[in-house]
Amino acid sequence: MADNNSLNALIEGLRRLPGVGVKSASRMAFHLLQHDRAGAQVLAQALQQASTQIRHCARCHTFTESEICQTCLDPSRDASKLCVVETPADQAAVERTSAYRGLYFVLMGKLSPLDGIGPNDIGLAKLFDRATSGLVQEVILATNFTAEGEATAHVIAEALKARGLKVTRLARGVPAGSELEYVDLGTIAHAMVDRR
Amino acid sequence: MADNNSLNALIEGLRRLPGVGVKSASRMAFHLLQHDRAGAQVLAQALQQASTQIRHCARCHTFTESEICQTCLDPSRDASKLCVVETPADQAAVERTSAYRGLYFVLMGKLSPLDGIGPNDIGLAKLFDRATSGLVQEVILATNFTAEGEATAHVIAEALKARGLKVTRLARGVPAGSELEYVDLGTIAHAMVDRR
Ligand SMILES: [Zn+2]
Ligand SMILES: [Zn+2]
Repeated sequence: MADNNSLNALIEGLRRLPGVGVKSASRMAFHLLQHDRAGAQVLAQALQQASTQIRHCARCHTFTESEICQTCLDPSRDASKLCVVETPADQAAVERTSAYRGLYFVLMGKLSPLDGIGPNDIGLAKLFDRATSGLVQEVILATNFTAEGEATAHVIAEALKARGLKVTRLARGVPAGSELEYVDLGTIAHAMVDRR
Repeated sequence: MADNNSLNALIEGLRRLPGVGVKSASRMAFHLLQHDRAGAQVLAQALQQASTQIRHCARCHTFTESEICQTCLDPSRDASKLCVVETPADQAAVERTSAYRGLYFVLMGKLSPLDGIGPNDIGLAKLFDRATSGLVQEVILATNFTAEGEATAHVIAEALKARGLKVTRLARGVPAGSELEYVDLGTIAHAMVDRR
């Protein structure tokens, strides 16, 4: 489609999405242009809005449009418990169980030496500061039950235990090798109760 | 993520893309916000530009930013041949073979009674007008080799033969059941030579 710069730019733009190759991008572009131009404009607006408005909560690092997110500001939350998750989607998965009423720390990633992601990239110094500030009685590690999630949990657990904190891990009710975001509510709720 | 309207709007916006469910949309949103905000802005701009600038060529119906596309305007093209394809991606697939130097008519779809897509939706009246205008000596049907693509080719072939035109179909070198966009160049080129 050599003479169609806007179309080529759209296909290239869609390829910035993870998991989208040139064929998928072409199909998406065709669908939007032929059947859903309103959708294209809605998505354009949402991308523009989100990429300029969304920042990280100063306390828990999750995505928010405010300085501090509503969860961190909620006075009914139990500030003695801090649940550590990898992503906002994982946080949302835990929230949906209604089995937890404490606070969160969202790593926004996981330790992954092969990808060059170290402790600084997931805010571990800040997590340790917060966990040892005196308010927190228990840190619940809810990173994914993948190799990298387990390694991340291990590193955090060792560091916090060395500082004298109580550290628990979601029980192995969560099937090994799976990612939290895809686990059903009941399994996560049970694992929360049985945390060790 | 109840307090995050921009994030929820982004996830909803991404779900307008075909084949993207809520889990994929969440992953895409996380990736863009955490790792590629520049990409989000590039995509937003491309969507905005494409959805307002791209229209259909007045002659062949393909996507273009002009009144008439460059292929239709190219004087070196053989105007006695008209190749009928379903989408611009299929047109691009035929072009890549360099086995064809005629003109195109892009249906922008296919007959699909179950989806309510009839002859008017794919511009058949205009195709018939153009094919019978006197310039065209041969219409080459290059719709996909799927059930709907074959049915579409059959309807067009019957109508044009009834008007006394020579109508050919890409040879069955293209594997049955497959979609043109995914077929290798050699197979398409061979099928073009062997058209019947
Ligand atoms: Zn927060
Ligand atoms: Zn054209």
